[in-house]
Amino acid sequence: MEKMCVAGLMSGTSLDGIDAVLVEIEPDLSCRFLDGISFDYSDEMKKRIEELFKPMISPKFLCEMNFLIGEYFAKAVNLLIKKTGVKPDLIGSHGVTFYHNPTEEKFDNFPLNSTMQIGEGAVIAERTGITTVHDFRPADMAAGGQGAPLVPFADKIFFYDENIPRVILNLGGIANVTILSKACETFAFDAGPANMLIDGAMKKFFNLPFDKDGKIARSGKTNQELLNRLMQTQYLNIMPPKSTGRELFGENFLNEILKSTDDTKENIIATLTEFTVKSVRDAFNKFIYPKTKVKELIIGGGGAYNIYMKELFGREFEPTTIIKTHEDFGISNKYKEAMAFALLAYTSYYKIPNNIKTATGAVKDIVLGKIIMKG
Amino acid sequence: MEKMCVAGLMSGTSLDGIDAVLVEIEPDLSCRFLDGISFDYSDEMKKRIEELFKPMISPKFLCEMNFLIGEYFAKAVNLLIKKTGVKPDLIGSHGVTFYHNPTEEKFDNFPLNSTMQIGEGAVIAERTGITTVHDFRPADMAAGGQGAPLVPFADKIFFYDENIPRVILNLGGIANVTILSKACETFAFDAGPANMLIDGAMKKFFNLPFDKDGKIARSGKTNQELLNRLMQTQYLNIMPPKSTGRELFGENFLNEILKSTDDTKENIIATLTEFTVKSVRDAFNKFIYPKTKVKELIIGGGGAYNIYMKELFGREFEPTTIIKTHEDFGISNKYKEAMAFALLAYTSYYKIPNNIKTATGAVKDIVLGKIIMKG
Repeated sequence: MEKMCVAGLMSGTSLDGIDAVLVEIEPDLSCRFLDGISFDYSDEMKKRIEELFKPMISPKFLCEMNFLIGEYFAKAVNLLIKKTGVKPDLIGSHGVTFYHNPTEEKFDNFPLNSTMQIGEGAVIAERTGITTVHDFRPADMAAGGQGAPLVPFADKIFFYDENIPRVILNLGGIANVTILSKACETFAFDAGPANMLIDGAMKKFFNLPFDKDGKIARSGKTNQELLNRLMQTQYLNIMPPKSTGRELFGENFLNEILKSTDDTKENIIATLTEFTVKSVRDAFNKFIYPKTKVKELIIGGGGAYNIYMKELFGREFEPTTIIKTHEDFGISNKYKEAMAFALLAYTSYYKIPNNIKTATGAVKDIVLGKIIMKG
Repeated sequence: MEKMCVAGLMSGTSLDGIDAVLVEIEPDLSCRFLDGISFDYSDEMKKRIEELFKPMISPKFLCEMNFLIGEYFAKAVNLLIKKTGVKPDLIGSHGVTFYHNPTEEKFDNFPLNSTMQIGEGAVIAERTGITTVHDFRPADMAAGGQGAPLVPFADKIFFYDENIPRVILNLGGIANVTILSKACETFAFDAGPANMLIDGAMKKFFNLPFDKDGKIARSGKTNQELLNRLMQTQYLNIMPPKSTGRELFGENFLNEILKSTDDTKENIIATLTEFTVKSVRDAFNKFIYPKTKVKELIIGGGGAYNIYMKELFGREFEPTTIIKTHEDFGISNKYKEAMAFALLAYTSYYKIPNNIKTATGAVKDIVLGKIIMKG
């Protein structure tokens, strides 16, 4: 194994654009963040990406989008190379999740588990001339896992401390937690929805992409009756490992909520924000505290910028569990997921298993990803 | 580079099942066929596969089918291992073509070329425990090629002889030729239709899948006027590299032919059979003989079993060009394509470029495929 400069690419569930980072990775897997950029999709491209999530799709459109998103990923890497003057040795790309469904269904005794990330790796490799590892989720799913979450592997490397039990909370579209404690094996799961519902409602009510700093939520008041109903969501009771996404907490879920209440827009946003916090708290009570004390809760993802939501977390957890940020550990919150895919690529390249079984539920340690050779 | 035992997997355009072979490959790329099996899809699975080719598809169904076809591919390899007692070191899998469109269209200045083969490689690797290379077409397309044909790379290794200029003619739905001669670079193209029209007419006239041994054609007589008209088809004049398929020589083309004549069924089948032979001959005159003499014409694909068509080829080409079969070279006609994907996997694994630029039109030599590491 050799030290490498690795580019990591992530396009989150918000689907606004691509985060690209350069990370120096040592054979002991310690990582040094070199630089990062965010590359936004054009408005027309954003519209096209939204079209991917319709109930029916034409093969032509899907396949074109797979290649086209690959072009954008490659462009992000090439811009990063131009900015830094450093050409990475390897690229790790998550892709855009087109579909993800860990299911118990079977056909002909075969599992119907499936997942598809698009953003053609062969295009990334060709346009950059750099060996590319992509499509990390299917291997875990093939091994009986949910194919998610994958970032806990990086969380463990970034944040594990045997003396301080920590939970890493990522507030993306979904709220994921990773539990790092010597009292138990590292495990992780999706606690429930985070920005997916809030952003969806902001779009509908105000045609805004998100609730900046949580100002709208702060101007409203939690609708206790609605919150109580939301807390009955069956998903919250499922034992981890578990993962969820747009299939459960997408458009339909939001529409059902909106149909069920005539409260003000502000109050609904406030309630959805509190729902995120309460459902995470609920997950601590049910699934985390029974296994370990938690001294620090490290909040990341887009939700870390929602000041109102952070206050709610403080009210809910402190002083037993102290709220911290990624930056407190020298890790860029904005770029952590992209960094994680650089680390996943590096380990895959050297055939180091890089799923966390207790996070995904896989029956064995697996080397994730597919390698496209260049150079 | 080390000698390896490699499994090759192919599921052809007829979509009835999977061909799986074991091939011993030496570092000089010489190949020895060890064994092969054909593994048919269940009737229900065949129906499901047909559903893949509707104009609109649900993401759930597509993604499930990607994983499910992977399960069938893995099962084919595991059956082959059971039969032979030999566990391969590597697997190469073509997959099932879900969509393939080499186009000139652009979006945002990016090409909208795209192709997708399904049959999840991560499932094949996991169920067999064997490193798997799959998804060979996108890399060539990313490099400006048509992503097809890929078999000429294997044809060159199987059949090239610097003293004997040869053409490999594959009579599948379409007639593809690969030209192997020291007088020119290896090139390949689709000459025109082969079984696609004949099989289509057999289905309509007799509800039979194909003209066994060419008996129906033999019982008829070529309609010279119709043949002359068919020979005017514009595609035959296009300069290679070129590829075609169902888009041009499918249902519509056949219906136009049938509308234009009131000749007997047998005479029409005879004429379509002769059209295949004459259009190949025409391609020799226009595109092959100007570049090289051809001493041997090696016929393969389903059409190699059409005795009448083979006789017509003999009449047209011999004695200048001698007609041979794959078996004359110790290559199984039935399993050649599966063998080709074993060879493509082996070369990809060792980073040997394995597209034929003059066949696909790519601007450079590329290592095709994506590697999923096991063991």
